[in-house]
Amino acid sequence: MSKTIAGPEIERLIQLLARLPGLGPRSARRAALHLVKRREQLLQPLGVAMAEAAARVKVCANCGNIDTRDPCTVCTDPARDQSTVVVVEDVSDLWALERAKALNAAYHVLGGVLSPLDGVGPDDLTIRRLVERVAAGGVEELVIAVNATVEGQTTAHYITDQLADFDVKITRLAHGVPVGGELDYLDEGTLSAAMRSRTRF
Amino acid sequence: MSKTIAGPEIERLIQLLARLPGLGPRSARRAALHLVKRREQLLQPLGVAMAEAAARVKVCANCGNIDTRDPCTVCTDPARDQSTVVVVEDVSDLWALERAKALNAAYHVLGGVLSPLDGVGPDDLTIRRLVERVAAGGVEELVIAVNATVEGQTTAHYITDQLADFDVKITRLAHGVPVGGELDYLDEGTLSAAMRSRTRF
Repeated sequence: MSKTIAGPEIERLIQLLARLPGLGPRSARRAALHLVKRREQLLQPLGVAMAEAAARVKVCANCGNIDTRDPCTVCTDPARDQSTVVVVEDVSDLWALERAKALNAAYHVLGGVLSPLDGVGPDDLTIRRLVERVAAGGVEELVIAVNATVEGQTTAHYITDQLADFDVKITRLAHGVPVGGELDYLDEGTLSAAMRSRTRF
Repeated sequence: MSKTIAGPEIERLIQLLARLPGLGPRSARRAALHLVKRREQLLQPLGVAMAEAAARVKVCANCGNIDTRDPCTVCTDPARDQSTVVVVEDVSDLWALERAKALNAAYHVLGGVLSPLDGVGPDDLTIRRLVERVAAGGVEELVIAVNATVEGQTTAHYITDQLADFDVKITRLAHGVPVGGELDYLDEGTLSAAMRSRTRF
């Protein structure tokens, strides 16, 4: 029981900020102080930005992306190859691939991976919607870009099974040495995969 | 020039979050996504909390503390020894001392330290207000709790000079080995100070 030093409004701000990833109780306190000291320049605009985002953000019913429009900017972009769909676990993966300009294609956000231990089954993900998208036609290639974890690979196999009856090319991201990575620090699985998939110099 | 992936509202949210201490561009993006995924539980409440804090936060005209009332909770607390005033550089130092329950006293927030190189002179700090507080009477001890930096010590000396004509006891925080600290990692100045101020076991 610590009594509040700076009023309940600021304590509440600290508590909520502490729930952001990357901020703990101590850094949330520092962030709150930073904010209240910059009331006009930062605290007010951020409050408004949050209210606006809260009011306008939607989940795209087609692909699961988060945007202020539905269908989202990616799904309605005529400059994208909508016949290629990159399947990702999370919106953060979509954003990461977009930042990397990895492929100018459409996406499908699963909303997680199959994980029986955590009680996550196929119906908790958007796999049915993915099958519908493929069944509707127009999708030629599905790039499975889930994380290289056991759950990710299980999910990838499940999706492949579900789509066995459709004429769609299913690919996955290459395994290998990360660009800039040092061999000495890589695990055996990655090194073996990189060796197996070696390419001509 | 990266085009926005997720609408201008979310991009603006990311930009503002990146200005918080402890969050860089990448973690701001992660925080924004965390927020928009938890719209009801976190994004909306945080927006409201920020608007409320922005509307209600004040700087205490007496001591410089940040609070939702002026004079602040600390200045009006009858259970505190208002005759002892702890002089700190910043509100964060006040909060840190309060968390440590270091002393149940009043405070005076300077708003920085004297730093000619950065163009910070006495009039940029609340030193005049501190002299007024002492001149008004009732202050018996002034604990100078500024950082142990060159600027902090210069400021401490300047304040002591300004108060030379008043009958007020001026003290400073002890130097020594931090609790839990290892001697091997401490600088010579700290070790010498700890040795000079050694106490009976």
